[in-house]
Amino acid sequence: MRTSLIFSSIDKWLLQRVHDATGGAQIRLALNNGNGFSPPRAAPVASVLICDRRTLARLFFDPEVGFGDAYAEGHIQVEGNLVALLEAAHLSMSSAQASSWYSRLASHWLERAQANTLRGSRKNIHHHYDLTTDFYKLWLDPQLVYTCAYFPSPSVTLEEAQLAKLDHVCRKLQLQPGETVVEAGCGWGALGLYMAKHYGVSVKAFNISREQILFARQRAKEEGLSDRVEFIEDDYRNISGRFDVFVSVGMLEHVGADHYAELGSVIHRSLGKSGRGLLHFIGRNYQRSFSAWARKRIFPGSYLPALREVMRIFEPWDFSVLDVENLRLHYAKTLEHWLDRFERSACRVSEMFDSRFVRTWRLYLSGALAGFRVGTLQLFQIVFAGPDCQRIPWTRAHLYTDEQSAKQESQWIHATS
Amino acid sequence: MRTSLIFSSIDKWLLQRVHDATGGAQIRLALNNGNGFSPPRAAPVASVLICDRRTLARLFFDPEVGFGDAYAEGHIQVEGNLVALLEAAHLSMSSAQASSWYSRLASHWLERAQANTLRGSRKNIHHHYDLTTDFYKLWLDPQLVYTCAYFPSPSVTLEEAQLAKLDHVCRKLQLQPGETVVEAGCGWGALGLYMAKHYGVSVKAFNISREQILFARQRAKEEGLSDRVEFIEDDYRNISGRFDVFVSVGMLEHVGADHYAELGSVIHRSLGKSGRGLLHFIGRNYQRSFSAWARKRIFPGSYLPALREVMRIFEPWDFSVLDVENLRLHYAKTLEHWLDRFERSACRVSEMFDSRFVRTWRLYLSGALAGFRVGTLQLFQIVFAGPDCQRIPWTRAHLYTDEQSAKQESQWIHATS
Repeated sequence: MRTSLIFSSIDKWLLQRVHDATGGAQIRLALNNGNGFSPPRAAPVASVLICDRRTLARLFFDPEVGFGDAYAEGHIQVEGNLVALLEAAHLSMSSAQASSWYSRLASHWLERAQANTLRGSRKNIHHHYDLTTDFYKLWLDPQLVYTCAYFPSPSVTLEEAQLAKLDHVCRKLQLQPGETVVEAGCGWGALGLYMAKHYGVSVKAFNISREQILFARQRAKEEGLSDRVEFIEDDYRNISGRFDVFVSVGMLEHVGADHYAELGSVIHRSLGKSGRGLLHFIGRNYQRSFSAWARKRIFPGSYLPALREVMRIFEPWDFSVLDVENLRLHYAKTLEHWLDRFERSACRVSEMFDSRFVRTWRLYLSGALAGFRVGTLQLFQIVFAGPDCQRIPWTRAHLYTDEQSAKQESQWIHATS
Repeated sequence: MRTSLIFSSIDKWLLQRVHDATGGAQIRLALNNGNGFSPPRAAPVASVLICDRRTLARLFFDPEVGFGDAYAEGHIQVEGNLVALLEAAHLSMSSAQASSWYSRLASHWLERAQANTLRGSRKNIHHHYDLTTDFYKLWLDPQLVYTCAYFPSPSVTLEEAQLAKLDHVCRKLQLQPGETVVEAGCGWGALGLYMAKHYGVSVKAFNISREQILFARQRAKEEGLSDRVEFIEDDYRNISGRFDVFVSVGMLEHVGADHYAELGSVIHRSLGKSGRGLLHFIGRNYQRSFSAWARKRIFPGSYLPALREVMRIFEPWDFSVLDVENLRLHYAKTLEHWLDRFERSACRVSEMFDSRFVRTWRLYLSGALAGFRVGTLQLFQIVFAGPDCQRIPWTRAHLYTDEQSAKQESQWIHATS
């Protein structure tokens, strides 16, 4: 009796500490033996059921990684809406106390282990993007665009929105027939192929994911674009040659803040003083570390920068920032589509991998959706130009004119027919 | 004979040093006694005629301030196009060696003497903006908008472009009838009055230029807007109260980099977490000091920041940057209009002040035009929002729709009739 009282007190104390570590989120924590902790002021948005004391101890030592791993393993169950729970956690953790020495040490160790050397990057990228393409086909759009879509209105389909994004990027770059484009981090090749097909440019596209490069080459061949789009399995640091345009959609997150100056050099080497370019990436309102769990299980070596940090790429070369657009709400919408499709394919994913994988990816997609909804994640598109660039648009109206929309619609019909 | 040879050698040596200080600009330097220095590789775009050795010595010790003052006094004449000369100097000076110890010391002393304390700012602003309004009426548009205009197309008039700018700002802020706006640095009141008249908001507008505030109040009275636009003669640091929107067009240049964190606090105090705002300012591609001559003679206490520096305003409060637009080319166009009108009024200006004033202002307007043309100056409009802001536009299409344009045109007719 005495012992159980002591244990119960320890449970409650630990639950309170774990709740403190969330910054006082509006969520309920409950242990399987009936002990629990509810937020003091308002009704919880969802409940976290912790299956045993060992899991509770993991949460105590490293709340974020502990939660992610225990959720994936099924040692934590969520009662209520997972996204709502994660929104509450994102919001409160922004104002939480500094994380424990253990979390900080583990996070630091992870950063070193996943450093983005040429070899390290290859390993990091392989972890995520070389999962079989069949998996991504289950829940991405048919073009396999694995970055934030652009929804001209919230009701358009994901397919339309991804094509609209490709076109939005092309318009921002004011691509002209015959120009040369280098793409750093090209995914399965959708943007490179789109640019060549609809804007008449020739493209060299770099990527260190072998699965993606092989898929992209095959697509180029099928679409008769192999002479105009070259897919190269290599690191952005090995880009050589001169181009009119540099574009990178969704790679900066994998570059790492230590390498921004180096990326700037690569861009300058590629464009000289007269070129122009676009970077599209997930960023932050201010400098903060990226989720240790996400780095451990989803995106090794990743970092999401504040705008201030990204300026390191442009400043040494006198590049002008011409346009920054924040598409945060579009990424939330994109993730709603992805998560919905993922859930509808959960059984197939479980067969391909296992249930732990399904739960890991559910948590990742839900966490990203929560982040974009509440604003702990932002999506920036930056257009920039060298000091001698002659192709600076007078206004941004060309991105939104009806004539362009009409052209775009016919392109959609063409691209999807 | 011997003495004259020695002097001639000294002249040539000094001319060469002064030319070096320009970073090897494509300009010819000539002394009144016939000694001269021409750029080695290509024909000069213009020539600088230096009237005496004393002026040459001033140029040697402090090329920038020396040039500006000697030009104003008529001890330097420019043969050829002044703007072209300044463009060449802007371009080459970006890559020039570090300035002399004398220039650096003088620049540092100036910075301290013109510090933007509450009292210092009042003095700094008084120097420029309290010149009689009649002077500005000679060469600004009828609304007296003394910031970069927005030209929907390069051929619209300055009057139309300034109205288009006011509307562009209002659209970016998505103003709704009944909302409250605080404006920091309101000039002669054009934006505040426009917002109240065309968007139905109520405005508190701050400015420490007495001349401008008195003029703005009078205009509000004449237009029957005194109940909706309050013009307050006070520093932005003394803004109090809560507002839906914060806007500042052309004030950040006078704030000084040391005060960005303070400005951020003022904005946060005014908006809380749910407001939104816009900053419009002249900036740079990277951090660099602002012309000592311009600070001495034109804009005491001014500083033009790189985007990186401006992030200090937003980051501490979790403000999201939603949109950055670079309107550099529009400022070049604006300055073409201003310079043209100024030259046509030069005789009147000379009567109002004196010929030194005319030459000083000619140099300032020409230098700014050159800077925006070659890109040593940039113009940024930043839209931002607090973490709980509910009025984030889905896309930026509303800035460019025809319906809005039609509305805008009728507004122009209304405003100018």
